[in-house]
This record gives sequence, C-alpha cells and structure tokens, in this order.
Amino acid sequence: MFTEADNVAPAMTAVLTAVLTEGPLSRVGLARRLGLSSAAVTKAARPLIEQGYLQELAATERSGPGAGRPASPLAIRADREFFVGVKITADELIGVVCDLGAQVRASAHRPLPYPDPEHVLTDLGHLVDDLLDGPGDYRARTRRLGLAVSGDVDRATGLVRYSPFLHWHDVPLLDLAEKITGLTVTVENDVKALTTAEHWFGEGVGAESFALVTVGTGIGCGLVVNGRIVSGSHGVAGEIGHIGVDVSGPVCHCGGRGCVEAIAGTHAIVGRARERSGRPDLSFDDAVALARGGDQRVGAVFAEAGNAIGCGIAAVANLVGPSRIVVSGEGLAAYDLFETHIRAGFERQAFGAATDCPLSIRPLPFEEWARGAATVSIQAFVAS
Amino acid sequence: MFTEADNVAPAMTAVLTAVLTEGPLSRVGLARRLGLSSAAVTKAARPLIEQGYLQELAATERSGPGAGRPASPLAIRADREFFVGVKITADELIGVVCDLGAQVRASAHRPLPYPDPEHVLTDLGHLVDDLLDGPGDYRARTRRLGLAVSGDVDRATGLVRYSPFLHWHDVPLLDLAEKITGLTVTVENDVKALTTAEHWFGEGVGAESFALVTVGTGIGCGLVVNGRIVSGSHGVAGEIGHIGVDVSGPVCHCGGRGCVEAIAGTHAIVGRARERSGRPDLSFDDAVALARGGDQRVGAVFAEAGNAIGCGIAAVANLVGPSRIVVSGEGLAAYDLFETHIRAGFERQAFGAATDCPLSIRPLPFEEWARGAATVSIQAFVAS
Repeated sequence: MFTEADNVAPAMTAVLTAVLTEGPLSRVGLARRLGLSSAAVTKAARPLIEQGYLQELAATERSGPGAGRPASPLAIRADREFFVGVKITADELIGVVCDLGAQVRASAHRPLPYPDPEHVLTDLGHLVDDLLDGPGDYRARTRRLGLAVSGDVDRATGLVRYSPFLHWHDVPLLDLAEKITGLTVTVENDVKALTTAEHWFGEGVGAESFALVTVGTGIGCGLVVNGRIVSGSHGVAGEIGHIGVDVSGPVCHCGGRGCVEAIAGTHAIVGRARERSGRPDLSFDDAVALARGGDQRVGAVFAEAGNAIGCGIAAVANLVGPSRIVVSGEGLAAYDLFETHIRAGFERQAFGAATDCPLSIRPLPFEEWARGAATVSIQAFVAS
Repeated sequence: MFTEADNVAPAMTAVLTAVLTEGPLSRVGLARRLGLSSAAVTKAARPLIEQGYLQELAATERSGPGAGRPASPLAIRADREFFVGVKITADELIGVVCDLGAQVRASAHRPLPYPDPEHVLTDLGHLVDDLLDGPGDYRARTRRLGLAVSGDVDRATGLVRYSPFLHWHDVPLLDLAEKITGLTVTVENDVKALTTAEHWFGEGVGAESFALVTVGTGIGCGLVVNGRIVSGSHGVAGEIGHIGVDVSGPVCHCGGRGCVEAIAGTHAIVGRARERSGRPDLSFDDAVALARGGDQRVGAVFAEAGNAIGCGIAAVANLVGPSRIVVSGEGLAAYDLFETHIRAGFERQAFGAATDCPLSIRPLPFEEWARGAATVSIQAFVAS
C-alpha cells in the first residue's frame, strides 16, 4: 500500500492490524502488545497518520513515570478508505460497501438469472457501479473489491478451482473481476471469508482458537487454531459437513455415508421431509411450516438434522477445543426448529470439559457473507 | 539453563531448537531460517558451544561470495546431557534414558503391583536409579526426568488432574517425583508427549500440521496445527476417541453414543467379541487369535473397529487437513486385523483432496511412550 519499499512495512502492518482489530491503543500499549520498541511503533505509525489511516485521539493517559508527553491513543480513521464485498451465490449477488473498520455503509442485491461466469461478471460490474456511484459517493475512496464464493478457491491466485453450487471449474475470477471493475480484487472461499470477519471484527477477536459453523445448502466450518485460520495441507479444512456421524445413514453426494450434510443440509432436509410426509412437491419453506405447525414426522427430520449438526460440532470441540463456536448460516432462519437439538447432540458427544465451550447459535443477516468478502479485502490491504 | 539472564536467551532457544530438530546447520543457514542477523546467531551460538551443547563440524561450504571464512555447520553434541523418560501405565513403568538428540541409550520395565501414587512413586525412584546407575554411567550428566501419564494433565504445574486408567485425581506428580528423584521433572499427557516426539524428532519435523492417532485401551490423537501442538481452550483437544460415528451405536463410558472408543477401544473389542462368540471369558489375545484363525464373527468386530477408527481419522483430515497422519499404539500389535478397514473407513469419509493425506499405520515399540516423555523433558530444557 506504500510506494516506498522499506523495512518499516512489517511493523506498519502489525500496528495497523492491532489498532483495527483491538480498538484505540496508545503507542506504549502497542509496543507492549507487539513486542516492539516504542521507537519502532512511532516510526511505523507516522506514515499511517500522514496518509490518514490512523488518527491520534485526545490524550487520556501518561505513558509512565518520567515520560514527558501524554500518550495519545491511536485509532482508525474508518472513512479514509472503503471496500466493496460481494458474495456470489447461484441465484443472486449480495454486495456491500464497508469502511476500513468493516462497518457496512451500503448494501445491494442483484438477482442472477444465469450463474455462468460471463453473465455473473457482467452483473458484478453493474452491482459494483450501483454501490459506488449511489448515495455516499464511495467511488473516489474505493480501490479494492473482495469476492466470496463457495467451494474450492485458491486465494493466492484468485482461481475458483471448483464451486459445486455454481457449477464452475477453474474460473480465473480475480483476473476477470479486475478487468470488469478496475479494482484490486481478492477472492476467498465464503466460509473462510466469514471466519476472517469474525476473527478480525467479531466474536473471534483476540481468540487463539475459535470456530464458525455455517448451516444451509452446505454445512461448513471455518477454524482458527493457534491464532491463524486453518487452511489444510491438502487444500481441505473445516469440512464438518462430511464428518460421518451415522455409519448406517444416507449416502452423501461426496460418496461418504451418514455425513452431517447428508442429514442436515437443506436438500437433505427437503428430501427426508418429502419422504416422511408423502408429499413429493414439498419445499424447504413448506417443511418449516409443517414442523412449526406440529407435524411430528417432519419435526423429526429437523430434530435429526439438529442432532447431526450438534454431533459434528462436538467433533470440532473434541479435536481442536476452540474457545467458542459460532453457529450461523441461512439455514438457521429456521433455527427455532434446530437449536435445542443442536445443543442436545453437542452435549451428548462433547467430551469432558469440551462441553464448556460456549455455542452462539444465531441467524445470519444476509449482508454478513458480503461483509466477510470485504473483510478479506481489508486484510489484503493491511498486509500490502 | 544458563545462570545469567540476558536477552540472548530467546535466540539461544531458537538456535538450539533448529539444530536439534533439523540437523547440522551453518550460521548463515540458521540466520536465514530464523529471520535473525548473522551476528545474533553467532552471539547465541557462542555460549552453547562453550557449554558443550553444540559443536562445529568441519567446514563444508562458504557462506557466500565475498565472505572470508568458511561456514562450519553447527551440530548437537548428543552425549552432552541425558534425559530420563518414564511412561506410567496402570500395571507397569516403562523407562528410557535418551541423549540430547532423543536417541534411546537404555531402557527398563518395572511391574506396578499397586497403581496408587505412593507405590508408583517408590517404584519410580527404583526405576530411575536402575537406569542411571546401570551400564553407561548416565547419572553425572542427567538432570531431568519427563513423565507421561494418560488423562488430564496440567503440564505447567505438573498436576495430574484426572487419570481414568490409574484412578488418580489431583495428584501433584511433579512435586512428588522431584522429591523422590532429585531431578527436574516435567509431566505431560502421554499422547501429547508422543506427538512432541514426532514433531521434534519423527515424521512431523518441519510440518505445519500433522496428527498422531494412538489405538489401544483409549483412542487418542495429538495434533499440530499452524506449527504448534493443539492444547484446546478448555483443556480438551485430540479426543478422537469420543467422536460419534454411529448415532445408534453402543453407549460409551463418557456418556456419548457410538464413540470411536466405544467401538474400537480394547475393552470394547473384547466385550463385542465375547458377545458375538458366546465366550464370556475371552481375552483380547484370544479374540486376536480367533480372528486370525478365520472366525468371521470375531473378525467382523475388528472390521467394525477399524472402520470406526478410519471414520474418526477422516474427521481429523476433513477438519484440520494435516500434512500426514501417523496411526500407532499398542492396539496395533494386531494391526493386520485393522489396517485394511482403517483405510477403507478413511477413504469413504475423507472429503475430496483430504483423501490425499498419507496415513502411516504402524505398531508402536514399547519404549516410544517413554521416549516421548523424555522428549518433553528435552523441550523443557531447551526452553529454559
């Protein structure tokens, strides 16, 4: 982000990250927190202040006995720069403009009639224009765009290797999106993007380890362990949806048996609800309505789904012991039908003190995925 | 380990760790590897050489164009100091003497007639004396003892909070063992100790992530993720034995249902083999003999056990994506009966590229647990 290469860069990244994620901090506090000398912090902060990313708040404390100057905490100037984030689903684009502090300033949807890359890119261009040229006049202070896509994404190159729901194979999304928008683009897996948002700006701030489980068409999990997101040595991590919890359960699209997703994914729930109710035309919303209306056969489908999710979450707690687990996702719009069963499954299978791990079960506002995408873009900016 | 406190200490620990775990390295190579200046490496290495922990090998390379001196690689002097490691089981003590490079120099067993702390401590004292005063004369160069115990162990204080197989609650093992032996003691959970050994001196050297699964009376797992052992925020991690893989499976001693351990732990296998064969007096060895002899009912018990273990291992691969997984433990003495089923269960449930994760399935020599305990002691020495 700075034209002159110098060895202050790593300290600048560390200072900006700490102030972004942990709020106003004095130079002395930063030095202690980062294991740097006060001089190094001052040197790193100067260009960030000059370029308007940091500001000095009014002095609130002295830096210690013998120190002459009052210590002015450093804070983010959130409106110094804006970031667009877009989540690409099979039937719509969801976009937001976030400030440097990841607050959503504007949002927009755009239906996707055709989810092939060419149409999606055209619609993406229009959505970004709508967001940046609408009220707020964000265009002048926006240089970056983050995209979030489900599936196997290579963040380093911005290649979407495989996205099952979009039916995409090897789409060089970063290059295509930079051409269309003229912005600097980052591409990340959607669950990892959401996990980054929680890690930098949500319930995961400061946590050495935490987990985010998303429930919907797919069932995914983002993990932070030993302070960093887990990426998986072979490109696979967080696949809670494919943990086998029922050796004699239904066969999954992945070839496994009794996978959490084969019991609790949206398609699985609809399929089982159709079977049990004898109504082959049932939609997910119909199934929710029937279960809420007291239909025991369909209610049992949600109970089994919640139980399978709880069992999968317990596997996460038993293996990596996160400090907390957030359970969210669009599937949790019906979370009244799931929640007690998720907790029951978790409590049955969590081992010993792993049951102490708090679960936050909450629906996910639609912009959150897009905010996650913007957060990855903020992170790329800070690291640059 | 050095009497003078100075700020060279972290660099000394880093240098000693790198040379210990990654073999002879030149100062230039160390500086590059550790992100230190050559001067800092030289300063850190000097006292380590003076005190005899490191030695300079004959020069094999020059440190680069323009450098005047040949670069002599630094190597460990393995016999500079020795470390005792003891694994405490319910019926015996297994002890080893290791050198600084974690090579086993001597080993001994001692049956434990009574596994209560008082008797165990007395026997531990005798075992340590036997090891140190026997051939090899290790006493003069041994100051440290590592102990490994199954169950919930607080490494920081050396308190055994709960060890189910020993029936111990809140035993201050570190303090008691230091009094008996006069050595500086570390206490660690046995699976974590074994994982430390693999991480520093085995298949896990240099790996950002790997997993070690142990199969026996209990089924455990040590995990390294993002370069460090996973400890669990609530004190629980690696509990692969309590992942639920069969929602309608047997109830486990932990209260869960269909846990891996309730299907594949030694007691579970014996119980199920007795049931299927109609022979209530069957031992584990009898069950192995029957299965090897072609008894299909008992063979199926091992097949189901292998399958459950494979399914649990797949959960590890799907969630954290280790670069490789070592499967070992005393239960694998019968690994001919398990192996194909472990691999089949793993391959069925591992998701996508997670199937690429190599599994090393191998029996565990009895001293390995004790060597793990000694390794933890070496690690504590290096950090001191």
